[in-house]
Amino acid sequence: MSSTLVDGVPGESIGSTDRGLHYGDGLFETISCHDGRARWLSLHLERLRHGCERLRLPFHDYRVLEQEIAALADGQQRCLVKAIITRGLATRRGYGPAGDERPTRIVSRHPWPQTPQRATPGFRVGISGVRLGTNPALAGLKHLNRLEQVLAQIALAEDGLDEVLMMSSADRVIGGSMSNVFFADQSGLFTPLLTDCGVAGVMRRLVLQTAGKLGIQVHERAVACAELNVVRAAFVTNVRWGLQPVDALAGRALERTDHAQRLWNLIDAARS
Amino acid sequence: MSSTLVDGVPGESIGSTDRGLHYGDGLFETISCHDGRARWLSLHLERLRHGCERLRLPFHDYRVLEQEIAALADGQQRCLVKAIITRGLATRRGYGPAGDERPTRIVSRHPWPQTPQRATPGFRVGISGVRLGTNPALAGLKHLNRLEQVLAQIALAEDGLDEVLMMSSADRVIGGSMSNVFFADQSGLFTPLLTDCGVAGVMRRLVLQTAGKLGIQVHERAVACAELNVVRAAFVTNVRWGLQPVDALAGRALERTDHAQRLWNLIDAARS
Repeated sequence: MSSTLVDGVPGESIGSTDRGLHYGDGLFETISCHDGRARWLSLHLERLRHGCERLRLPFHDYRVLEQEIAALADGQQRCLVKAIITRGLATRRGYGPAGDERPTRIVSRHPWPQTPQRATPGFRVGISGVRLGTNPALAGLKHLNRLEQVLAQIALAEDGLDEVLMMSSADRVIGGSMSNVFFADQSGLFTPLLTDCGVAGVMRRLVLQTAGKLGIQVHERAVACAELNVVRAAFVTNVRWGLQPVDALAGRALERTDHAQRLWNLIDAARS
Repeated sequence: MSSTLVDGVPGESIGSTDRGLHYGDGLFETISCHDGRARWLSLHLERLRHGCERLRLPFHDYRVLEQEIAALADGQQRCLVKAIITRGLATRRGYGPAGDERPTRIVSRHPWPQTPQRATPGFRVGISGVRLGTNPALAGLKHLNRLEQVLAQIALAEDGLDEVLMMSSADRVIGGSMSNVFFADQSGLFTPLLTDCGVAGVMRRLVLQTAGKLGIQVHERAVACAELNVVRAAFVTNVRWGLQPVDALAGRALERTDHAQRLWNLIDAARS
């Protein structure tokens, strides 16, 4: 079976008038697949549904989408499946949709990424010079406007880092360029609020849901830039990495706490 | 001749792995064409070149692009030509480009838009509830991350307005959802600085270049939201509208000054 389905049909092209291309008018999900199954799929679909409501993007074919994701995951020991939903081909010119567009559905399978070999061992995280624009209307959504992350990753690669943390224009820590972040303090964990910008990751949500079962307190709160100078431990999360402890933050060595391992054991054991 | 060229070939599709679709990783220009000629083309290409540098997008085929725009404009009394340049098909997964992508060039011709008939005469401008995220790394560029404008235009259509002004997250007036804005005061004109966000429009630049020749002072400066309550006249600009006087701003009638007409007469007469 082809590794890409466009509106259900194997293929590698989309219409050049698609609003996903012209405006980034759409959303995506990157789904971790193990042993032939898409993991945490209900959380991905729930976030997608929420995003479509927020963008007023009239996508309804969730069952078909779920079947396509399952078909691409089937028989794969380990892979990623990416689903993009755009508002569809433009039916008129201009930013404003006409209202009669039919959403485009692009589902593709990708090999599980190799972890790059670095000269220096350990997971090293920097601070990005690229800020995240504050926009409550888009905050939390995994939409297709991702130039800030593209620019952050260009610099990350040049610096030989594994990830960079990004600040909002209001000098708040928001998250990694492709992950969310949790920090440890005396009372447990804290993670940035995502009301101004950032992506509300599926793994972040799993951590928030799971921590209580282990008696770990997690506070979602504004995190000032200056706190990065004193934080003692951190991990970043996404569905590919799971919970990845940070060994060095902006060149400063961090401790390892057992939070990430304990949380991951429970999240992974749920087999969802 | 087909009305769309993708990398020089007539066609209506692009690769589904294009980074323009996945991340909005690209730029565009919308060019006004009259009497078979693309107007102000050198300014469009200059902005595009500047944008490619800022995004580190290695596009170099400006001559070919210019020829394609000219070919689509040829023989047309009045049309718009839109050029999109993306970083190209992804050569690996993830936000960060591999560096070996080959930019995609999409040039398309569109009929000159009809001005919608409104129940109320006059050009009515509102204030958008959607904010523009502050991001100096992207400010001024006409990039493909345009969800803020999409959301603003959805609300604009519901309110039956001709345009909406958008504020930054720092409560500064930035411009219209598809235009720049100039305001009149006792000393001449002023227009928002675009160092935090917004698009540096070609018509805005023509106004800035032309005003001096007419002895009209124009200040580029931060414009506070509250100034909209007291401003006495305004016009919005883009290459389609030219200089469009605003008759009502947030429901308040504005005066008409002769700035817009005098400036347009000179800009239009240059025949570039």
